Amino acid sequence: MSTFAVVLAGGSGTRLWPLSRRGRPKQLLPLLGTRSLLQATVDRLAPVVTPDRCAVITNREYVVEVRRQLPDVPPEQVVGEPDALGTAAAVALGTAIVAARDAHAVMFVLPADHVIRPVEAFHGDLARAADAARAGFLVTFGIPPTAPETGYGYIEVGDAPEGMLSVRRVARFVEKPSRAVAARYLASGCYLWNSGMFCWSVPSITRDLGRFLPALAAHVADLTAEAKDGADALDAALARVWPQITDRTTIDYGVMERSDRVVCVPATFTWSDVGSWEALGDILPADADGNVVVGRHLGDDTRRCIMYAPSGRLVATVGLSDIVIVDTPDALLVCPRDRAQDVRAIVAALKARSDPLLD
Amino acid sequence: MSTFAVVLAGGSGTRLWPLSRRGRPKQLLPLLGTRSLLQATVDRLAPVVTPDRCAVITNREYVVEVRRQLPDVPPEQVVGEPDALGTAAAVALGTAIVAARDAHAVMFVLPADHVIRPVEAFHGDLARAADAARAGFLVTFGIPPTAPETGYGYIEVGDAPEGMLSVRRVARFVEKPSRAVAARYLASGCYLWNSGMFCWSVPSITRDLGRFLPALAAHVADLTAEAKDGADALDAALARVWPQITDRTTIDYGVMERSDRVVCVPATFTWSDVGSWEALGDILPADADGNVVVGRHLGDDTRRCIMYAPSGRLVATVGLSDIVIVDTPDALLVCPRDRAQDVRAIVAALKARSDPLLD
Repeated sequence: MSTFAVVLAGGSGTRLWPLSRRGRPKQLLPLLGTRSLLQATVDRLAPVVTPDRCAVITNREYVVEVRRQLPDVPPEQVVGEPDALGTAAAVALGTAIVAARDAHAVMFVLPADHVIRPVEAFHGDLARAADAARAGFLVTFGIPPTAPETGYGYIEVGDAPEGMLSVRRVARFVEKPSRAVAARYLASGCYLWNSGMFCWSVPSITRDLGRFLPALAAHVADLTAEAKDGADALDAALARVWPQITDRTTIDYGVMERSDRVVCVPATFTWSDVGSWEALGDILPADADGNVVVGRHLGDDTRRCIMYAPSGRLVATVGLSDIVIVDTPDALLVCPRDRAQDVRAIVAALKARSDPLLD
Repeated sequence: MSTFAVVLAGGSGTRLWPLSRRGRPKQLLPLLGTRSLLQATVDRLAPVVTPDRCAVITNREYVVEVRRQLPDVPPEQVVGEPDALGTAAAVALGTAIVAARDAHAVMFVLPADHVIRPVEAFHGDLARAADAARAGFLVTFGIPPTAPETGYGYIEVGDAPEGMLSVRRVARFVEKPSRAVAARYLASGCYLWNSGMFCWSVPSITRDLGRFLPALAAHVADLTAEAKDGADALDAALARVWPQITDRTTIDYGVMERSDRVVCVPATFTWSDVGSWEALGDILPADADGNVVVGRHLGDDTRRCIMYAPSGRLVATVGLSDIVIVDTPDALLVCPRDRAQDVRAIVAALKARSDPLLD
């Protein structure tokens, strides 16, 4: 029973606009240094799952770049969806690719844009999850919350299954809560953030996909055979099958919330989905004044600012606190750190006028 | 008795850094639209003093650009000082150039970097000043203060001279005051800002330069003859004479504060010396949210900001108030409006490390 990983790298989010664009999404950017978040995800897995056992599900338009960034991942295991249909379809596709290598494998499913530290804690949690997967469970990773976040789903933790000390049953999944409810969850200590990271065996997930999403499962059933025939055969099959799939759902909603075999590994690592400039600022190292600087900065009386200017153009600031400045060749963003989530308003306005600055 | 103007365009200020640089000073930049402050100064004078009767005293390195910007000013009347020695020397040089055309002329002396509105009020005040100049007075323009500014000198206004209704004697000049003193001056109604704009006849200023700055006057005495011989002769004479001048003083301190023939025209126009980004923001038109935008701006919940991005790169802002953003090809400035004066701290730091971003 070998171990594989499916990395979900299809996101086209623009929450880090103006750096991230539809054609240049977060996971492909070297946000933390020289390696992209996607590369860091594969690097982080390597001691547990070598790159040749990784598959990457992404958008068709990112396939070339993903293969370029990950030369040690077999190119036929980098697959572009004709359309993003939701994580249930992506997981089903990833399962088909893994099954082509080993129909009994244990597989991790990991988003490409998470920052996880320390790596040793992560590896320990992966091992605990794999143990539970081998016992037939569908495993989700829960993150101990550190703030009453309203942007994440939560997991209510139940008992430990018989004889398994390091995982817990999932009492229920809850959707993104209100601020007040999130604060209650945080205080209770009985809730974890739903990370979107999973582990299961190919037979387990195949069984539950068939049970809860039978139409999707039927469409994807033949893809394992196509994957064995190589990238071109799989691409041709996807072009045929994908337009017929109508189950545009998430794996959480489609399977995890319905299955009776779901358990949770409470994570022992720290985690960020780098969902905003504020979040990136929290991850990158700060100087003595609390400023996070990528590029060149000259400041007077400047504190707790995030200056992201990879072009190397000088960013000069005077009398500034808690401000985000993002400098790209064609657009500049300036906003308070605590308004970084509202970059979506800018993105929405650009979208409304079909502005090329989104691409 | 014809009328001339000497425009002082030698400033190399960097208070509008990063837009203004040592090699690209404020007066040569099209800050208000398509015309530079220097061009606007000559445009504004034109109905009273035609460009062929204007002389421009500037730094040697700006001569070519000044001549390019002012094709209607005779090139031999655009003169570059080998060194900036203070306004007394610049005025003496300008007087020599005017005297070469008319030894009895009335002449205005006007800085190249002032913004003055409305032009009709300005023309009326020029006419009043010229009347007093013809009567033998040295005339300074005083600006009714609108705030307790500590960055300007003040003029205490005295009686009107016999038979002259529209000018006032100067009781005294006072140096840049403290905040408390400036507030008292403002409240009293008896003080005006010293604008650095003057009017006098060639014989009057020649007499008082000779009386109060005799060494300077002696050095400059021959320049009128050289100016008659053309630009090359004058340049050669300046190269010889300028290094010998040791009176590095202002015309205010060197002559105006000592002469007994000084009067003041209280200005009826509004005036700005565009001494900071805040000052420029006050001059440029604002949109409904109070934002001043040069370039392209996309804002959400953004008020009273100054966005100066002439390159046309998009400036996107969220949740921002009272912030200055200046976008140039090699440097970006972000600071609160009320800290715009402190750009000098950035400039000082760049100077200390001989940074080419000052040039």
